[in-house]
Amino acid sequence: MTEMQGGKAKIVTAAMLVIGNEILSGRTRDANMHFLAGKLTEAGIRLMEARVVPDVEDTIVAAVNELRGRYDYVFTSGGIGPTHDDITADCIARAFGVGIDVQPEARRRLEAHYEPGMLNAARLRMARIPDTATLIDNPVSAAPGFRIGNVLVMAGVPMIFQAMVASVLPTLTGGDRLLSRTVICQVPEGAVAEPLGALQKEYPDVEMGSYPAFRGGKASTSIVLRSTDRQRLDAAAGRMHEIFRQLGGEPVENEIV
Amino acid sequence: MTEMQGGKAKIVTAAMLVIGNEILSGRTRDANMHFLAGKLTEAGIRLMEARVVPDVEDTIVAAVNELRGRYDYVFTSGGIGPTHDDITADCIARAFGVGIDVQPEARRRLEAHYEPGMLNAARLRMARIPDTATLIDNPVSAAPGFRIGNVLVMAGVPMIFQAMVASVLPTLTGGDRLLSRTVICQVPEGAVAEPLGALQKEYPDVEMGSYPAFRGGKASTSIVLRSTDRQRLDAAAGRMHEIFRQLGGEPVENEIV
Repeated sequence: MTEMQGGKAKIVTAAMLVIGNEILSGRTRDANMHFLAGKLTEAGIRLMEARVVPDVEDTIVAAVNELRGRYDYVFTSGGIGPTHDDITADCIARAFGVGIDVQPEARRRLEAHYEPGMLNAARLRMARIPDTATLIDNPVSAAPGFRIGNVLVMAGVPMIFQAMVASVLPTLTGGDRLLSRTVICQVPEGAVAEPLGALQKEYPDVEMGSYPAFRGGKASTSIVLRSTDRQRLDAAAGRMHEIFRQLGGEPVENEIV
Repeated sequence: MTEMQGGKAKIVTAAMLVIGNEILSGRTRDANMHFLAGKLTEAGIRLMEARVVPDVEDTIVAAVNELRGRYDYVFTSGGIGPTHDDITADCIARAFGVGIDVQPEARRRLEAHYEPGMLNAARLRMARIPDTATLIDNPVSAAPGFRIGNVLVMAGVPMIFQAMVASVLPTLTGGDRLLSRTVICQVPEGAVAEPLGALQKEYPDVEMGSYPAFRGGKASTSIVLRSTDRQRLDAAAGRMHEIFRQLGGEPVENEIV
């Protein structure tokens, strides 16, 4: 957990590692990153980096070790099913230098889930959990995710990923929430860029992002202001409204969090 | 360009770097990665890794240098607009150790695009291009992307990103295309996992991915087979049909490329 300048805000960081050839080939459009990003922001955890890597052992191990050293939490998705291309659990065990074997509680959950005689060797692979890891519930299809150290390993199927995120988030320590306001106006980005830059210099503690859009043939700009300090955020957002009005626009807000 | 075992397939690799706080905060769902992944696969270029990083100079510079050393091409999206948070061009110049300034041809394009008097200092920032880079056309809003070395720098707005990809792809050298067939069957993944694993061992040169789905309450599995060798691919896909039929299923294919 890093302390921000002045020791005021508690910052908790995270990375996401999406594991799967299907995302990189364009076959599947990842949905988990966007979901997790929103949930982490709500929980006061800042997603600082996301990576997509293929089902290649060395690549996964290297990415896990790099990310878990750099951020407070690492969330992985994908590669924990019953088939030969599901190698995430083995990669995590190797990254942590621990053994891996069928874990009794994980096996019990699979036995309870499948009809008698249906828990074959391939399905039993889903009970292989790295030593010292704790299980993450899977209310959809029983096969659990797991947590080891600061790494949380979850399924790639969005419905299961989302259920696992819901079950682990309350167990994590969040930091100060990054509050945000978004001021939108039918003014082109290039027209507001200079006063916005000046405002950013005046409020270095409020992060300001500018996002252009073209709707119905008209250029508009969304300014996203983010800060852990409600007063500074509101002051900067108020100034942003003034800037847009001075440019002849009528600013609105579509989200105040 | 890496040669595959046996010297048969020419493999050309790429990475994507998505630059922008808005993706990591969950405000915006990235659309460019999925689009690029599909186009690269068609062009015989293999997307090996994708990263999302925030608008932080050191982070962007480090990622660019790591990825451009590791892959044949690096595609970036985002951060080339007119506002203070658009720092991609400066980061690329720093990564390559070259200067950056307003480039005459880029300036000419902006002058031709804007009404007289509208090309203010902020908009002129979009003509700042690292030394030795060549321009990538922007048919939507004029402000160009650029290529320097093996790095292609493009806008984050999807409409502009897609136009830029269309204009640069024909200029790149692709490798042998990874052909694919997808065999789908209403058989649960756990039932097909063992014969699939055996088939993978028999065809180590055909990449096999397994993707479970639940449609209308019924479990189905998609097996994606990929190879640069048409004959080997077809042989493996034929065997996959047999495996599903032996399990009592009726396999279909939804894409033969």
